[in-house]
Amino acid sequence: MVPLIEYAEASAEVRAVYDDIMRNRGTDWINNFWKVLANDPPTLRRTWESIKQVMASGALDPLTKELLYLAVSASNGCAYCIASHAAAAKRAGMTPEMLGEVMAIVGMANETNSLANGYRVPVDERFEKLF
Amino acid sequence: MVPLIEYAEASAEVRAVYDDIMRNRGTDWINNFWKVLANDPPTLRRTWESIKQVMASGALDPLTKELLYLAVSASNGCAYCIASHAAAAKRAGMTPEMLGEVMAIVGMANETNSLANGYRVPVDERFEKLF
Amino acid sequence: MVPLIEYAEASAEVRAVYDDIMRNRGTDWINNFWKVLANDPPTLRRTWESIKQVMASGALDPLTKELLYLAVSASNGCAYCIASHAAAAKRAGMTPEMLGEVMAIVGMANETNSLANGYRVPVDERFEKLF
Amino acid sequence: MVPLIEYAEASAEVRAVYDDIMRNRGTDWINNFWKVLANDPPTLRRTWESIKQVMASGALDPLTKELLYLAVSASNGCAYCIASHAAAAKRAGMTPEMLGEVMAIVGMANETNSLANGYRVPVDERFEKLF
Amino acid sequence: MVPLIEYAEASAEVRAVYDDIMRNRGTDWINNFWKVLANDPPTLRRTWESIKQVMASGALDPLTKELLYLAVSASNGCAYCIASHAAAAKRAGMTPEMLGEVMAIVGMANETNSLANGYRVPVDERFEKLF
Amino acid sequence: MVPLIEYAEASAEVRAVYDDIMRNRGTDWINNFWKVLANDPPTLRRTWESIKQVMASGALDPLTKELLYLAVSASNGCAYCIASHAAAAKRAGMTPEMLGEVMAIVGMANETNSLANGYRVPVDERFEKLF
Repeated sequence: MVPLIEYAEASAEVRAVYDDIMRNRGTDWINNFWKVLANDPPTLRRTWESIKQVMASGALDPLTKELLYLAVSASNGCAYCIASHAAAAKRAGMTPEMLGEVMAIVGMANETNSLANGYRVPVDERFEKLF
Repeated sequence: MVPLIEYAEASAEVRAVYDDIMRNRGTDWINNFWKVLANDPPTLRRTWESIKQVMASGALDPLTKELLYLAVSASNGCAYCIASHAAAAKRAGMTPEMLGEVMAIVGMANETNSLANGYRVPVDERFEKLF
Repeated sequence: MVPLIEYAEASAEVRAVYDDIMRNRGTDWINNFWKVLANDPPTLRRTWESIKQVMASGALDPLTKELLYLAVSASNGCAYCIASHAAAAKRAGMTPEMLGEVMAIVGMANETNSLANGYRVPVDERFEKLF
Repeated sequence: MVPLIEYAEASAEVRAVYDDIMRNRGTDWINNFWKVLANDPPTLRRTWESIKQVMASGALDPLTKELLYLAVSASNGCAYCIASHAAAAKRAGMTPEMLGEVMAIVGMANETNSLANGYRVPVDERFEKLF
Repeated sequence: MVPLIEYAEASAEVRAVYDDIMRNRGTDWINNFWKVLANDPPTLRRTWESIKQVMASGALDPLTKELLYLAVSASNGCAYCIASHAAAAKRAGMTPEMLGEVMAIVGMANETNSLANGYRVPVDERFEKLF
Repeated sequence: MVPLIEYAEASAEVRAVYDDIMRNRGTDWINNFWKVLANDPPTLRRTWESIKQVMASGALDPLTKELLYLAVSASNGCAYCIASHAAAAKRAGMTPEMLGEVMAIVGMANETNSLANGYRVPVDERFEKLF
């Protein structure tokens, strides 16, 4: 739909983001998602800075974060995001058994979400206050 | 939409499921989701048996599983499921910091999912084979 | 968000649609969906004419059509549409047992849809040609 | 993403499910959905047992059930599920005219669902109690 | 899944719609969406008449309307609709810069929609009344 | 689910964002979305900075941008986002006629998106290259 912007033809602004992505991930290539966003440099930069901040180790470890990202992407049916975050999760330590359990939860959550919405189940009073 | 089936008025078949839910969770009450499903006992039993199997400790621990369930429910905008699984995640050890990180990932995943789909980004060859 | 346009205050153009809705359904009241659409008369008329055409008896009978509408609405989590089409389905003959089976299918379809998408299952060659 | 597990290489546990699928359907082959789930045998077995129970003839006949499954899958945009359940619906008696009517309902339901949600239409009091 | 109905083989009823599409758009070809809908002529006619009415210049100009259609299609991840409405938007004047801004908004809206739903943010009183 | 953080009780870090929101919008109050995000200050800051950048006047004017945000939110059924962005769009100049046209497009896009996905319509060759 729009061209993939390769490193060799990228502007200095785009290259700076590409360099930061590769440094942060310890890789020597850029995946298509970023090459497409590079058609709109402000979105490329903003999205990368946001991802970098959100996926950094915090109260949750990197593997758990990648599994969460994968689960949401699988639930949304985003083929590209499933493929890229499954690869990232594997690099972070995801085993085939873990993948099976993540997908089983995605499936059950979608089933019970549609049942709760479909039956218009009222929220229990004691669930209202969390923190 | 349909009545909430309370324990006192439930059939023996429904009570058996309610008893197993309370025993499994160490609680003395039943939340509305099950009281609604009890209008259709086979779906009540099947759904509970599936949830029990899927959410049991395995390659992933119970807290991680609840965070995944919460993330998918939040992404799907199922208010009931968000409320009930946020409570379950808290019982399993979720802190306010973890909740913040889960929601930040849900937000970013929905943003990048829509960007990847919207731009129709082609899947990179090297992402095709995972395991 | 926008006012509900009651019959008494409606323009002749809107009243003509309201009259046709009541005549077609054999009822003497208008539900909120149409009172909201009446803020935009062309959308009111177009939507009603489309619904009338699509839901008329054809290769499928009216009950089956209402169950299909309900199933999609439940899957999408549209509370208003679930409530109004469940009522319409009941008028067309839906029993509590049928409702239970519709919801069970909605739940399973959402589960297997997310599994098929999540695992990026390739479509079998022999499924490609239908008619 | 994960390998397709063919019958010849499957474990006894997986073969038992494959055999039951073929017996139940009167076919001599297994479609890709199950070959992918076979990477996680508990999910394979649980999903098949659930589908078998939910899709069995009950208050609704098998054709109606397959049309409902197809409608939800089409609404969710799950290409695999559309293809496999359209094939199943055809085997159960779906004609091209029925397919056209199912799709027309899916389209209208998605249109009016988004209008009802978009305008935040309040649920009519008399729709609140169904059964 | 169903055959593409080409002009040469189309019925008079279908050709009349095809002719109106080409006249309305000033083009000499029909895209696949209509060739598929032509398998169900009433849906072909109704959908085209609705699109023609909705997309006609009104309070909003044609470019803005196409950008809105593209944004919703991108958000829903409908590959076909993204491709066809991006082309239509370009014909109406969309520049690459505009495309970048539309997609950035689609991404942010999906992020904040999931955050607002995920945190179950209560609607502010002063937002309740719009017009 | 989580408390609303009011200005009076907010940390300096949160107040700085609140002040920037009010200055940027020329208002003297903060809506609930930000008061909820304030439970997680990094997400509050990041989300606000992103929104500010994305919604600034560019190739598209502020009204068009708000209409796009509203359309996506309506399509996603996010009640909070619909309410807040409808208010923002009105401040930017949206008339009731424009609202009606936006919603009509949201409805049609959801209808044709589900038809294109449901029928698995192949993308026309000439739509593949956009820019």
